[in-house]
Amino acid sequence: MDLRPIGVFDSGLGGLTAVRRLSEVLPGEDIVYLGDTSRVPYGSRSRETIKRYAGQDAAFLMSFDIKALVVACGTVSTTALDVVEKACGNVPVFGVVEATAKKAASSTKNGRIGLIATPASIRSGAYAPAIRRYAPKAEIFDRACPLFVPLVENGRTEPGDVVIETVVREYLEPLKNAGVDTLVLGCTHYPLLSRVIGAYMGKGVSLIDSGAATAEAVAAALRAADALGSGEPGERRYFVTDSAEGFEKVASLFLGSGIRGEVDQVSLEKY
Amino acid sequence: MDLRPIGVFDSGLGGLTAVRRLSEVLPGEDIVYLGDTSRVPYGSRSRETIKRYAGQDAAFLMSFDIKALVVACGTVSTTALDVVEKACGNVPVFGVVEATAKKAASSTKNGRIGLIATPASIRSGAYAPAIRRYAPKAEIFDRACPLFVPLVENGRTEPGDVVIETVVREYLEPLKNAGVDTLVLGCTHYPLLSRVIGAYMGKGVSLIDSGAATAEAVAAALRAADALGSGEPGERRYFVTDSAEGFEKVASLFLGSGIRGEVDQVSLEKY
Repeated sequence: MDLRPIGVFDSGLGGLTAVRRLSEVLPGEDIVYLGDTSRVPYGSRSRETIKRYAGQDAAFLMSFDIKALVVACGTVSTTALDVVEKACGNVPVFGVVEATAKKAASSTKNGRIGLIATPASIRSGAYAPAIRRYAPKAEIFDRACPLFVPLVENGRTEPGDVVIETVVREYLEPLKNAGVDTLVLGCTHYPLLSRVIGAYMGKGVSLIDSGAATAEAVAAALRAADALGSGEPGERRYFVTDSAEGFEKVASLFLGSGIRGEVDQVSLEKY
Repeated sequence: MDLRPIGVFDSGLGGLTAVRRLSEVLPGEDIVYLGDTSRVPYGSRSRETIKRYAGQDAAFLMSFDIKALVVACGTVSTTALDVVEKACGNVPVFGVVEATAKKAASSTKNGRIGLIATPASIRSGAYAPAIRRYAPKAEIFDRACPLFVPLVENGRTEPGDVVIETVVREYLEPLKNAGVDTLVLGCTHYPLLSRVIGAYMGKGVSLIDSGAATAEAVAAALRAADALGSGEPGERRYFVTDSAEGFEKVASLFLGSGIRGEVDQVSLEKY
């Protein structure tokens, strides 16, 4: 048994979709969440800047004596995981790439896998080798989707909205035409678009939620290491770098329920 | 004559539309530009965070012995001009609000003025009192347009694009229905949407470009203070806080021509 909390961070609040999945598979764990809301989004920034921000995010969470760190940010997972691992020393780090790649590889039947993510994640090229470790012959079709994050953050997630439907069609048409049977949602914002994306891609295409895949991997690893919590309902602490005002409303979008636990603002510049 | 440069900053590269206008009215001035590209956008952040960022931006430009500072960021102009003025001491500061409000007031015939800007700018309420100083009876109809910045930054600026046309119609419909004859483009990204916005609002509506209005005000003030430059073609220096790579391509969108002058990356954390 290990009563220490799990740390989770994202560039903003999209990573709360991963907290939601973690809460489902590990209801008895304490979680400390950090959303770098004063510098979100990371996905359009340079690798160097993403690494600097990621190092500060990890150092902050390490100050909580965490037993594991979940990088619920696709961009950091693909672009700056080395920096996070260095900041975490012996504490295990779970990025979203590995578990998601494994799940995509086991999902595909025709060996054609689509991948959508932020420009930085696509540029990193991190997913393809990870998928090929589990499915050496997979053909991977990727596409950067720079407008998905701002559209989700502005609530444009519902079927019937011509704006999101047009952008989804534009971004996904090449992947649909390529005949993928599995589509990796490589950014924690994207599960909120599942209905629109699912409707466009059709029933034969499995959508892989990177937050869910990672939450399952974390649960398996903690179980294997006999490091689960007490089983009591876990506590939550949330930190943001911009004002905490308005957090609840947006957070509940991603969490799928109201938040519980304190929310505080923190400055990362000293980390 | 005053050979010192003019400082200009924006949260990102949208402020280059103001540099373009400054270059037209004051071709003989040196300009130092700062775009805080590692933290853009400001317009969706809290007032407190915007003030902190704005103070750092101003302090950085003050290190160049500038003769005037142009805040080519609508969000900072409406939300944090006090912080910038404090950082600048005796150096005159030109936000976009005052000149834009004056121009809008002189443009309207029916006294109905529309205002579009970022959520932070609209929340600040800064434009209405400024417009009423020049047109006490003006009726002002405002609207936050949170998707315009990401859409412009993704090149969605052309008539015929159903995405930008749908969003423009959604945001501007209430202003059009209110019968405004003047529309303030209160963010330096928005001039790139002039064609789509102009087509939707119709020929009877004058669009007020905040960067252009401010450039004219700066020119008038420098002339009045006998502080113009030598008349030689001015030099340019550009600074960004994210990687300078890719700057030229995006910058030329906003400048309307290729860039000239050096581009360097800078860290603002020490300011």
